[in-house]
Amino acid sequence: MSLKIELQTLNIGIKDSIHDAVCFKLPKNSITAMVTTKNRYAAAPVILSKINLKKNQPKYLFINSGNANACTGKVGAQNAQKCTKALSKKLKCKESEILLFSTGIIGKQLPIDIINNKIAKHKFQFKSSWSAASKAIMTTDAYNKFYSKSFLLNNKKVTIKAISKGAGMIEPNMATMLAFISIDLKLNKQILSKLLKQITDSSFNSISVDGDMSTNDSVALISWGEMNSIKFLQNSKNYKKLLYELTLCCQTLARMIIQDGEGATKSILINVNKSKNKKEAKLVAYSLANSNLIKTAMYGADPNWGRIIARLGSIDNVKYTPEKVKLKINDMMVFNKGVQSNNFNLKSLNKSMKKKEITIDIDLNSGDASHTVITSDLTEKYVHINSAYTT
Amino acid sequence: MSLKIELQTLNIGIKDSIHDAVCFKLPKNSITAMVTTKNRYAAAPVILSKINLKKNQPKYLFINSGNANACTGKVGAQNAQKCTKALSKKLKCKESEILLFSTGIIGKQLPIDIINNKIAKHKFQFKSSWSAASKAIMTTDAYNKFYSKSFLLNNKKVTIKAISKGAGMIEPNMATMLAFISIDLKLNKQILSKLLKQITDSSFNSISVDGDMSTNDSVALISWGEMNSIKFLQNSKNYKKLLYELTLCCQTLARMIIQDGEGATKSILINVNKSKNKKEAKLVAYSLANSNLIKTAMYGADPNWGRIIARLGSIDNVKYTPEKVKLKINDMMVFNKGVQSNNFNLKSLNKSMKKKEITIDIDLNSGDASHTVITSDLTEKYVHINSAYTT
Repeated sequence: MSLKIELQTLNIGIKDSIHDAVCFKLPKNSITAMVTTKNRYAAAPVILSKINLKKNQPKYLFINSGNANACTGKVGAQNAQKCTKALSKKLKCKESEILLFSTGIIGKQLPIDIINNKIAKHKFQFKSSWSAASKAIMTTDAYNKFYSKSFLLNNKKVTIKAISKGAGMIEPNMATMLAFISIDLKLNKQILSKLLKQITDSSFNSISVDGDMSTNDSVALISWGEMNSIKFLQNSKNYKKLLYELTLCCQTLARMIIQDGEGATKSILINVNKSKNKKEAKLVAYSLANSNLIKTAMYGADPNWGRIIARLGSIDNVKYTPEKVKLKINDMMVFNKGVQSNNFNLKSLNKSMKKKEITIDIDLNSGDASHTVITSDLTEKYVHINSAYTT
Repeated sequence: MSLKIELQTLNIGIKDSIHDAVCFKLPKNSITAMVTTKNRYAAAPVILSKINLKKNQPKYLFINSGNANACTGKVGAQNAQKCTKALSKKLKCKESEILLFSTGIIGKQLPIDIINNKIAKHKFQFKSSWSAASKAIMTTDAYNKFYSKSFLLNNKKVTIKAISKGAGMIEPNMATMLAFISIDLKLNKQILSKLLKQITDSSFNSISVDGDMSTNDSVALISWGEMNSIKFLQNSKNYKKLLYELTLCCQTLARMIIQDGEGATKSILINVNKSKNKKEAKLVAYSLANSNLIKTAMYGADPNWGRIIARLGSIDNVKYTPEKVKLKINDMMVFNKGVQSNNFNLKSLNKSMKKKEITIDIDLNSGDASHTVITSDLTEKYVHINSAYTT
């Protein structure tokens, strides 16, 4: 096996002529952690990969675009297994050493005979670039999403590379947010899983375009290489630095996903602060992020605080005193002490809201928990794209 | 006092030149029940009316359009009281014998001096029609909503009259669903409250345009007249007939509200059946009703069952076996046994979905509870209306 992660993009016959699959070849001793969708209709490859990851560490990750293999029943499950079988034969590994990821149309069976024929015939050389891989996993993404950064950790150079796709649901169900992140540090599985949970919670799990969780959403974090970091990560400063860099990577990709949201013109950062607890902060942040009245007001650069406050007021089971809530839009106080703020300046707010990013800060003043969600605005183009007859 | 409900529409200076208020004069011995919004920022008139209704039965209902008197703090509460004070003086009743309702912009103070001056000068003759009243309570409604029907109950002629407005939130926050229903039957307060809860649960509380609950939503049910029905309503057949007629009234008005939803082209009936319990049926019905991906697919007449199933799968805390779920669109089975139904016929489904009403039936097969929600589709016009700069 090679000393670093190697990639191969290829065409497996789902899309015409362009590359519709990526194979990651992982180096020896690499460790992979994965988080997946909680959707009750989780796709066949998601279910299979979870089983495989429990058996052993993967040697290959295989991703196809164009077909999600979701809501496909027993045939779909068999097709996922047939695919890993064909790959294991070709790549000379155990079936369970492959993790499978799919993204694309829901409810259609994979053209498995074509796929396996293509796999059997393909010459795997593993010379593709991360950038090419980020293109091969695209579905309706307007652009590919690739991240690469080197930084010093404990005076050693460390590199993060990552690709992502997502998250809107444009065509029948071109659903799915996928992300694959690699770091050239030797970590144990426990630290890796902890890191993965932390970085996804504050990035991919804190964005909302449609408020829907797809059947195929998955994020994998791969650690590899000889640089044994377990010891120096016991220093909390080093751990925090690593967490910061990985979070930055995921937040950058998450923002790229939001900005590539269907028809979106703006990204809207919703900070819920001083909440009684994290659960309530999340509940409020997502409720505001999924309000069409708020999303359309943001599109229109309209500092319509009444919609935000009315939405807050309609959420059940959140503790706060209505008169103690403070609301800012782009750092300007708009609502305070139960009424419109004295500082409310319609013209300057409207001007500031015409920018590509809008920040909403809402202080509940009932505790010290907070949560941030990033969402997109709702535009005529979103409706146009999503109502186009596609099934 | 007169023997039947009498009405007066008037201008109180909120809107220019047209009537922006209605006064209901209730006959002697009439009984009024009321349900109001649960929004934490319930408007000043909502809070005041709840207090007044506890003190005594109302003699007058007073409704203004154009200003919601919500999120207006202490001044707003004082203005609501000043308004009932002016009315009580003019109409020669106690302040607490008036219920106040407001609908319109959130966050702006009422022009209370102008209003009270107008009230003081107005000659209340109570000769207006229900139809005129239904117009005076409009905000951004495209048309007025008025219902009238007579039917036989226990061989006696009974008449229901009702007016309504709502529920979209077009202008700054022209929020609010209001409905006033009268029935010329003598009922006690207990039966009236029970009826009101039943009829609103299956009508006004089962519609969703924006998923938001406004600061001013209120429904009042007034029983009046000499026909003492308490005895013959102990016959369950009579009670059911009355319940049926009142429900029909409210459902008719609720449908008018949905069809008048902002930019809506279709109403979508979502029936969740065979759910473990009512709570879960409601949760699923509302979650589907508020999905932009489903609402845009309906707009495009696209039988995109993947979006419906993926949304179902993303809801937490609902009991069902994914493979046992059955999904029909316009009575045609589209999803069954975990996969697309064999009967799926794209062309004929697309054709049937071009009509003004679409029905989605989802059977969870985990119990015998059900719930129905009516929603509207999501169109470019909705976005256009709601993003227009209005604050």
